[in-house]
Amino acid sequence: MTTDTTPDGDDEQDFESYADLGATTEKALDIAETSMDRVRELVPDETLADRLRQKSVHATGDPEFQHLLRFNGGEPVRAGARAVLDEAPIVTDITMVKAGVTGRGHDCEVRKAIGNGAELAAETGMTRTAASVLELDKQGVYDGAIAVVGNAPTAALALADCIADGTRPAVAVATPVGFVKAAESRTRLREVAAEYGVPAVTNVGRRGGSGLAAGLTNELVHVASDVRDGDVSLTES
Amino acid sequence: MTTDTTPDGDDEQDFESYADLGATTEKALDIAETSMDRVRELVPDETLADRLRQKSVHATGDPEFQHLLRFNGGEPVRAGARAVLDEAPIVTDITMVKAGVTGRGHDCEVRKAIGNGAELAAETGMTRTAASVLELDKQGVYDGAIAVVGNAPTAALALADCIADGTRPAVAVATPVGFVKAAESRTRLREVAAEYGVPAVTNVGRRGGSGLAAGLTNELVHVASDVRDGDVSLTES
Repeated sequence: MTTDTTPDGDDEQDFESYADLGATTEKALDIAETSMDRVRELVPDETLADRLRQKSVHATGDPEFQHLLRFNGGEPVRAGARAVLDEAPIVTDITMVKAGVTGRGHDCEVRKAIGNGAELAAETGMTRTAASVLELDKQGVYDGAIAVVGNAPTAALALADCIADGTRPAVAVATPVGFVKAAESRTRLREVAAEYGVPAVTNVGRRGGSGLAAGLTNELVHVASDVRDGDVSLTES
Repeated sequence: MTTDTTPDGDDEQDFESYADLGATTEKALDIAETSMDRVRELVPDETLADRLRQKSVHATGDPEFQHLLRFNGGEPVRAGARAVLDEAPIVTDITMVKAGVTGRGHDCEVRKAIGNGAELAAETGMTRTAASVLELDKQGVYDGAIAVVGNAPTAALALADCIADGTRPAVAVATPVGFVKAAESRTRLREVAAEYGVPAVTNVGRRGGSGLAAGLTNELVHVASDVRDGDVSLTES
C-alpha cells in the first residue's frame, strides 16, 4: 500500500470519511499523517486485508479490533475495490452510515435502504430495516452492489437471506453492533458468504457500528484509488 | 427511569437514534426491549448518569464502556435534559453525528458545525472542524446550546477554547475517537468544564466516535421525554 495520506486520514480521525472533505489544511495533513503512522505501528501492513484491519483500529480507537475482523467468501477487499472501480452502488442500511461514506475517490451512487419497504414491515411485523433490505432486493438493487450494514442486525440477517435466495452483492460489509442478534447476524452472513462465494467483511463479537462500517467502506474506496494510481494491483494474488 | 422502550431502543441497536424512526413493528419492539434489558443487567440503573452509562454500553456493544464515561462541570444529564426541554439547538461537529441524532422527542434545531469557517481554516491552516466551531462560536451559536463532538479532536479543543473565552454551552457531549489528540482533547474539555461550570459528558481513552456521541445526545432527549411525562424530575438532587 502507499504511504500517502489516505483521503480519510484527513482532518483528524476519520474526518473526511465522515464529513466528505479532504485534508487540505496544513494542520489537518499533519494530524492525518501522525494518526495513520500510529495505527501502522500497531497493525501489520502486508496485505490488502491489513488495510481494513488498520482501518478498523483507526475507526474504533482500539488496537485490539484488528483481531476481530473476518474475511469470507473470497477476497472482499479486492472485490470491493473492483466494485468501486466499476461504479457499483453503495447501499447502506441506515442514514448515519450513508453520511459516513466518503463522497470522494469514487463515482458510485450511495444510497440507504431504510425508508423502503414500510408496507412490508407493517404487514409482517418485521423490522423496518429488514423490510427495507428485502424491498430493495426485490428491485434487484443488491446484485453487484457494495452492501453495507453498520447498525441493524436484522438488516444483516435479511441480506443473508437474500444471498441464500440467489442475490449476489459484489461485496458485503457488515458490522452491526449490540447485544441482541448482532453477533449472530454476522455469523449467519459469514456462513452464506462462504457457502455462496460472496466476499464479505464482518467482525466477531458484540462491538461494531456505523462508524466502523463507513470506515471499512471508505477503505475499499481508498484501495480502489490506489489501483487507479497504479500503486495496487487487483490481479496479483 | 421508566422501563418503557426508549425511542432509540427501536428497531434494534440504536435503530431509531440513527434512522429517526420509531419502534413501531412488533419485531422491533421485541428486540428493543430485549436489548435494553440486557444492558440493564450489566449497568447500574440508579442515577441519571447511569442512563448515559447504559447508553454508552448500548451504543458500543461493550459493557466495559460504562466505566469510561466522565461527568464534569455540574450535572450534565439534568442540564442536557433541561436544554432539550428549552429547545436549545443541538450543534454537532460533523454530518454523521447530526445524522445520528434522533428527530423525535424534541423541538431542538439540529445543526452541524462543519461547512462553516472555511476561510478561517484556509487563512490559519487550522483544521476545518476547529475553524467551523470557532466560526459558529463567533456567531454566538454555542451559548446555551447542546454542543456535541463525536469525531474531531480539534473540534473538542476549539470548543474548550471557546468555553475558556467565555462561551457557555448548556451542556457539552464530547467523544472524539482516535490516536492523535482525541484523549487529550477530552481531558482539556473536562478541565475547562470543571473550571467554568459547564456541564460536560466525555469519555477517557482513545475510543469513542460518532455513534456514541449521537447515542448519548439521544439519551438526553429521552430523559427530557421522561421529564415531560412526569417520570423524572430535574429538581430532585
